[in-house]
Amino acid sequence: MHMSDTWFREDFEHTGSSIGFRLTRKLDQVQSPFQKIEIYETTDWGNLMVIDGAVMLTTRDNFLYHEMMSHPALFTHPAPESVVIIGGGDCGTLREVLRHPGVRRAVQCDIDEQVTRMAEKYFPELCESNGDARAELLFDDGIAYMKNCAAGSLDVVIVDSTDPVGPAEGLFNRAFYESCLKALKPGGILVQQSESPLALVELMKDMRQAMRDAGFGAMKTLPFPQPCYPTGWWSCTLARKGEEGFDTFRSDDAAARPFATRYYTADVHRGALATPPYLAEALGD
Amino acid sequence: MHMSDTWFREDFEHTGSSIGFRLTRKLDQVQSPFQKIEIYETTDWGNLMVIDGAVMLTTRDNFLYHEMMSHPALFTHPAPESVVIIGGGDCGTLREVLRHPGVRRAVQCDIDEQVTRMAEKYFPELCESNGDARAELLFDDGIAYMKNCAAGSLDVVIVDSTDPVGPAEGLFNRAFYESCLKALKPGGILVQQSESPLALVELMKDMRQAMRDAGFGAMKTLPFPQPCYPTGWWSCTLARKGEEGFDTFRSDDAAARPFATRYYTADVHRGALATPPYLAEALGD
Repeated sequence: MHMSDTWFREDFEHTGSSIGFRLTRKLDQVQSPFQKIEIYETTDWGNLMVIDGAVMLTTRDNFLYHEMMSHPALFTHPAPESVVIIGGGDCGTLREVLRHPGVRRAVQCDIDEQVTRMAEKYFPELCESNGDARAELLFDDGIAYMKNCAAGSLDVVIVDSTDPVGPAEGLFNRAFYESCLKALKPGGILVQQSESPLALVELMKDMRQAMRDAGFGAMKTLPFPQPCYPTGWWSCTLARKGEEGFDTFRSDDAAARPFATRYYTADVHRGALATPPYLAEALGD
Repeated sequence: MHMSDTWFREDFEHTGSSIGFRLTRKLDQVQSPFQKIEIYETTDWGNLMVIDGAVMLTTRDNFLYHEMMSHPALFTHPAPESVVIIGGGDCGTLREVLRHPGVRRAVQCDIDEQVTRMAEKYFPELCESNGDARAELLFDDGIAYMKNCAAGSLDVVIVDSTDPVGPAEGLFNRAFYESCLKALKPGGILVQQSESPLALVELMKDMRQAMRDAGFGAMKTLPFPQPCYPTGWWSCTLARKGEEGFDTFRSDDAAARPFATRYYTADVHRGALATPPYLAEALGD
């Protein structure tokens, strides 16, 4: 990361590409026990959160990520009631999960309370469901939380973390996935952000291999646009406790969803299931 | 545009965002009568072509754009035989068009011969069909070419141009679209690159209004990922001479296509037809 004039720029070493946003001013900064969190105001993207030099989200484009991290998994599970979000401190994924009337309990476990405090201040729209009686916000180690979860107690686990370096490194390996598998009920779904489908396929392959090694059955990677992340194209990977695949989902429920979305629809979900040939080949699908 | 260390960066004034690529070296540069063309070698994206400071394409990600500029239109038309490409000097769209065995004639009309000369040298894979007996490469004014085209002579017109500033400005207005409409047979299709579906929707709306004013019937905007353009998310807009829409296409032919693609499939095509709610609202679809 380096500043030039009034632009925030992030150079991605692994992809050899860079993304930047034009700034009007810096709004805030805090050094938590885990990481440095910065908030900027941009000219065209609303507010921008940066953690340790890496863009986390902007006001303008986070709906793409948050909708795709939650609705495909929740509309694939037949009746999700108990959901855990590991990471997700900006609370945007939690808000989307709680839109599902069938969800009875949604726990968000992020290691860094300061991420949520900053989100409350600079992305208040993402935190508007934090007071929901079904929501529980924990600030704790997600790896330990999943390890100690009661076996067979969860329907969906959403891993909404930073990249596999620093605090989030332990969320991308076999031991963590084994904890998730144990905590899920049969047929339960794990969904995790899985990096760029164009430039970070090796990372995606490693992640899927670790899920497979941990005992997950079917797996599916769904690409979606995300301008603020490397290459502007991102993905989530769904993994199932059991062998049932992801080609079908509750499409009628998705089409008749009792809440508004900006990106997700049943047809968009179907579109995201259409793996491009080059990616299918790379993943061995 | 400014260079910093070994990065090429392009700052997009209209979107308030920036994209960059890490460079190893500059390979070539030419000032044509129309524009300045630069070629760089990147660390991760192969070769990079820049025109007047704007990224045109990279070796690594151009397949997304070229496949989506050609196959959706050609698999929507019932039997495309006569195709004209306005712009497209890198020859990548021409190559994709010529993959369709039913195409009898494909004219590429780019105003700047130097773009094609540079593509032959630094993107030879895109030019591998230039010697096809069905191909005709013209270096001429696309606006005049379309104006002088015989009425009702074409099945598909593909406008594969730079942005609506500089040489390409005249390819985004009513007068040009009227020429296209006249040159198309009934049921013929116009397809044009239509900028970022997230950050440049106003431009897309103006373009669609001009197409409508010119007399085009149905219209449809298909988003697709394109890392080297602003926001990493791009689109093409299809317009029809006639009222028949774009919801159906020759999906069996697309699924059984006698050539390999890396991104396009019948399912990807269907996915691109799934307009996200925010975009449908913005476009008044």
